[in-house]
Amino acid sequence: MKPELRIFKIGGGIIDSEADLLEFVRLFSKIREPKILVHGGGKGASEMMKNLGIAPRMINGRRITDAATLDLVTMFYAGKTNKQIVVALQSHGVNALGLSGADGNVIQAVKRPVRDIDYGFVGDLSEASVNTELVHQFLTLGLTPVFCPINHDGHGQLLNTNADTIAASVAKALSKKYAVALHFCFEKRGVLTDINDDDSVIMKINLADYAELKESGIIADGMLPKLENAFDALQFGVDKVIIEHALHINEDLKTTLWLN
Amino acid sequence: MKPELRIFKIGGGIIDSEADLLEFVRLFSKIREPKILVHGGGKGASEMMKNLGIAPRMINGRRITDAATLDLVTMFYAGKTNKQIVVALQSHGVNALGLSGADGNVIQAVKRPVRDIDYGFVGDLSEASVNTELVHQFLTLGLTPVFCPINHDGHGQLLNTNADTIAASVAKALSKKYAVALHFCFEKRGVLTDINDDDSVIMKINLADYAELKESGIIADGMLPKLENAFDALQFGVDKVIIEHALHINEDLKTTLWLN
Repeated sequence: MKPELRIFKIGGGIIDSEADLLEFVRLFSKIREPKILVHGGGKGASEMMKNLGIAPRMINGRRITDAATLDLVTMFYAGKTNKQIVVALQSHGVNALGLSGADGNVIQAVKRPVRDIDYGFVGDLSEASVNTELVHQFLTLGLTPVFCPINHDGHGQLLNTNADTIAASVAKALSKKYAVALHFCFEKRGVLTDINDDDSVIMKINLADYAELKESGIIADGMLPKLENAFDALQFGVDKVIIEHALHINEDLKTTLWLN
Repeated sequence: MKPELRIFKIGGGIIDSEADLLEFVRLFSKIREPKILVHGGGKGASEMMKNLGIAPRMINGRRITDAATLDLVTMFYAGKTNKQIVVALQSHGVNALGLSGADGNVIQAVKRPVRDIDYGFVGDLSEASVNTELVHQFLTLGLTPVFCPINHDGHGQLLNTNADTIAASVAKALSKKYAVALHFCFEKRGVLTDINDDDSVIMKINLADYAELKESGIIADGMLPKLENAFDALQFGVDKVIIEHALHINEDLKTTLWLN
């Protein structure tokens, strides 16, 4: 039987509040090892760009990662946020190892091809992007990898990458060696039947349930791509996906997604 | 016999020019493994502080690392500079792993005690600060650690640390397992007999030579603390210390320091 591995992903909503981030770190430190944390960005990089007088470049409402933006997000995500999390985890006795994809070549991305829009220095991933063996070695050494959303292309170029995609790719790759539970943490306690009722959490959803919930319109809008992503991970070997509140990972109210 | 290990330290003079830094990286990529790189800061963090309207705090001409400064240098050194070096090394086939002291708890520092001056969030090191076993494991995995000058105290606080000190401490600690050559790279080709003649490099200096050179006034000023640091490393187990130009590490003109 494969050993269990828990992979948690946190995003901007939790990172933007230092108190919330430190509380999440405290809760995460109690999770049984082996474990991995993937973090996204936050508003900090945009605020710093504003303070430096660098205007964000937008095309059709989508943000473009030009060279100046890449510079700032690398500093913020790989420098400030990543080290802030690592140093806090260390203070709770978790031997965290901060990683960009370039470190140890753990994740190699491909610059997004230019079609209608040139997104700039943005990286896309595949399952083959992840250096499964080295991540496994780190876990074997008792380390807890902490991934920031900055990767590289192997030819000297850093690339900004969506953190949900990193978490899903790492989970799929590691599922060859581990029974992986992938935890997407956000500001709700799970998938809700009523978006205005935070307690209306659907505890379990399998692929058949999902088709029904989508059909009936109960799941819609922003939750759809999250769940597509989640079921994709399940179809590529991840054991289960959990959608939960970042500040309640120690409680039972959450949504668990399975294939069957 | 212990295996050989080469530890290189580069400073602001080389980091501030992107072309020079990339040339150093190209030369360093040809150095036989196992190897380690330690980098300092550069002017970038100060320039960014100026652009953000944050005034550097100085006491008696010494820079104080207050909270805002620590934030900026962490972003710059652990984010921008460290990843810039790591991604360039990866493009040359070197499996670089960027590290602050907090990552894997590889270096634990102690906040400098307040005596005449409170230097703020500055960390001092001892030989016991370095997690020798984990650095050894990284080397065994074929990784090339790249240390930035940011460490932590183990209690959640990041600390800015002098890169020469990091290089010497890592060298002393690793000398238990390796025959360590510690390379201090700067903008001269070695210790000069005539500061105005770049070719007047003293090729070899042992402890007795050093006493004479100091006595006669040939070595003075800024070179003295560098050499004190170097002979300290030799006395604590490092095999040899080399003082050389960062852009000529592949050439023979350099100063090698030995105990005898």
